[in-house]
Amino acid sequence: MTSSSTTAHPSDTDLLGSVIEALDRLRATGPLVHCLTNDVVVNFTANALLAVGAAPAMVDIPEESGMFAGVAGGLLVNLGTPHAEQRAAIEAAVASAGEAGTPWVLDPVAIGALPVRTELAHRLRDARPTVVRGNASEVLALAEAGAGGRGVDALDEVDAAAEVATRLAGTTGAVVAVSGPVDLVTDGARTARVANGDVLLTKVTGGGCALGAVMAAFAAESDDPFVATVAAVTTYTVAAELAAARAAGPGSFAVGFLDALASVSGDDLRVRARLS
Amino acid sequence: MTSSSTTAHPSDTDLLGSVIEALDRLRATGPLVHCLTNDVVVNFTANALLAVGAAPAMVDIPEESGMFAGVAGGLLVNLGTPHAEQRAAIEAAVASAGEAGTPWVLDPVAIGALPVRTELAHRLRDARPTVVRGNASEVLALAEAGAGGRGVDALDEVDAAAEVATRLAGTTGAVVAVSGPVDLVTDGARTARVANGDVLLTKVTGGGCALGAVMAAFAAESDDPFVATVAAVTTYTVAAELAAARAAGPGSFAVGFLDALASVSGDDLRVRARLS
Amino acid sequence: MTSSSTTAHPSDTDLLGSVIEALDRLRATGPLVHCLTNDVVVNFTANALLAVGAAPAMVDIPEESGMFAGVAGGLLVNLGTPHAEQRAAIEAAVASAGEAGTPWVLDPVAIGALPVRTELAHRLRDARPTVVRGNASEVLALAEAGAGGRGVDALDEVDAAAEVATRLAGTTGAVVAVSGPVDLVTDGARTARVANGDVLLTKVTGGGCALGAVMAAFAAESDDPFVATVAAVTTYTVAAELAAARAAGPGSFAVGFLDALASVSGDDLRVRARLS
Repeated sequence: MTSSSTTAHPSDTDLLGSVIEALDRLRATGPLVHCLTNDVVVNFTANALLAVGAAPAMVDIPEESGMFAGVAGGLLVNLGTPHAEQRAAIEAAVASAGEAGTPWVLDPVAIGALPVRTELAHRLRDARPTVVRGNASEVLALAEAGAGGRGVDALDEVDAAAEVATRLAGTTGAVVAVSGPVDLVTDGARTARVANGDVLLTKVTGGGCALGAVMAAFAAESDDPFVATVAAVTTYTVAAELAAARAAGPGSFAVGFLDALASVSGDDLRVRARLS
Repeated sequence: MTSSSTTAHPSDTDLLGSVIEALDRLRATGPLVHCLTNDVVVNFTANALLAVGAAPAMVDIPEESGMFAGVAGGLLVNLGTPHAEQRAAIEAAVASAGEAGTPWVLDPVAIGALPVRTELAHRLRDARPTVVRGNASEVLALAEAGAGGRGVDALDEVDAAAEVATRLAGTTGAVVAVSGPVDLVTDGARTARVANGDVLLTKVTGGGCALGAVMAAFAAESDDPFVATVAAVTTYTVAAELAAARAAGPGSFAVGFLDALASVSGDDLRVRARLS
Repeated sequence: MTSSSTTAHPSDTDLLGSVIEALDRLRATGPLVHCLTNDVVVNFTANALLAVGAAPAMVDIPEESGMFAGVAGGLLVNLGTPHAEQRAAIEAAVASAGEAGTPWVLDPVAIGALPVRTELAHRLRDARPTVVRGNASEVLALAEAGAGGRGVDALDEVDAAAEVATRLAGTTGAVVAVSGPVDLVTDGARTARVANGDVLLTKVTGGGCALGAVMAAFAAESDDPFVATVAAVTTYTVAAELAAARAAGPGSFAVGFLDALASVSGDDLRVRARLS
């Protein structure tokens, strides 16, 4: 492979090389990822992090989350079930992550019409997350460019959100990742599309939410959040393809997906990644 | 198949035809199901809904649950871990469901001796749930005809609960479903028994709780809650049989059960359903 | 097999005989196990209890937990996500367990630097738990002999914790179990080492936490908590070996582990247990 460049408009080959290096680095270092996430997916999220090679920790009370976000390698803030105690824990963790320089991912699940999470998401957006991850309607709602989603379904096409995502990246400084049949990642200047994955990923709860945690794991071991985010999406969606090929339905897919996340290799990415 | 009639004492064949139509309709429409359920089973419940073809959403804070219950297709209220914040969310959701006409399922987990959930369940019973689901001892306790259960075990036989269930249906207007080796469903006037299922379903946590969510999914797309409830029980327990035939234990059963819920067809129901 | 003696320094053969008897007894009686545990592992914990033959119940609000701990066969207190409401539920449950003589297990997850759980763990330690379970760094922190862990990782070797564990058992009256490549169990007078298990158990979230619940199940049906704890560790880690032999990664391992917990037999233990 050619040497990679992560700072300016790498070619597709350069980017793939950087992605593979990022996976190797994550496996070698096992970053500690602090997750403040929803009750529905917290188990799957922890197992996805363990599988990919990271160490999950769900320290989700306000008296402890600030301290912990300061020592963790990365932080995930997912708004799927924003209980009052967790909202306080999130505020403490995000403040601490900002002070300590801990990279953090914001996943504004189902914002738009639901008032508590929407108001919180807008406030968190302005606290300079490292990465924002959502489906098209969530990204539109975060940018206050759309009405938001119906739960975790994506009503808007990814392409329709591309312009808004680029603008959101520009105004917030975050890398913005939009999930869909083709995933889009942009930091405002650079944009990548990842055409991997499988529809079964939408048939397992946490299929999207756990990706946010994996992004935090990659961001923990990278000085380029754009490359880290592309690496997370590529690793995750290629693992999904490997699992889907052996699955008999959503139950066996979820099991095989964790196996695949643990075994997916740089060679798998080299053969399968559809990056552009 | 003969044409079905869902309004008055259908024959077994008519009922099975209606059940198959209900499954086809659920798969075609993908109803949004709002779940206020316990921490133990919330992940399995979401995955069961996705597998059967519905869209789960666990909006469980009081500031958001009322609004959401008004737009959801169906609502599940499960009392397994009734935290204070969730109790408030339940009250808001049930009030809103009543106003909006959203069908809702009450699962009074482990009521009887435990005071908070028992008092709440009695109050919710009087708020006119569309469907009540429980094991025999829970149904007896909800009707204030027995002392309640030991956790989620069923100490009383389903048959012993049949009379009480019929009376409870009459006084509340709800369809009452009693789980057991043979499941009983009654709306007071009509009664069906479903003799499908497998004992492995009792060896996976959420085996009963997720059924309540599937009932809410069927009720969302039906104007006859009795048929919807029979359809949910039949689909669910036939899927359990399909999974049990391939399982090596409770772990592989749970995985295969989600696969089977996603693939179970009208033909499977026609061949296997033991409805009477 | 020779007859077993559980009261004074049994030989390895005697201890193995007692372990097998304990497993048979658990399967015959199906003890009710009350779990106050963390959100991440609560589903896996309930499924592990069901698989091994116990009946889980997660009654985790303060208005109900005290009553329930008084009637349960055993109680698990796990501090992984100690929300305010759960902390109150724990205090009520532990007080009630003490009065009723319900055996209980304390799992002080990630104590050391995190203030709320650490203070609570020290207080619970002084309330005379029947069993304490943790990794080496957690046991050191509970004994106030070390700085505690990084989440659920074990930074200290089990052997280094052996002396501290023996002292902690002496001062608290608890059986102390230290997880690691070789598990250590001591009641101060007797010490056993169990050299079974598989590294995949550390790649599934709840791999350690669910063991605490299984310990509570065994303690519910034993008058010797030392033998009960050794039986739990042996059954659990032998099941892990059986599952690991068939696993393709952490996903399939977790599934196969539940299958193995449900099927592991006295003969399996006799052939595979590496007790000393």
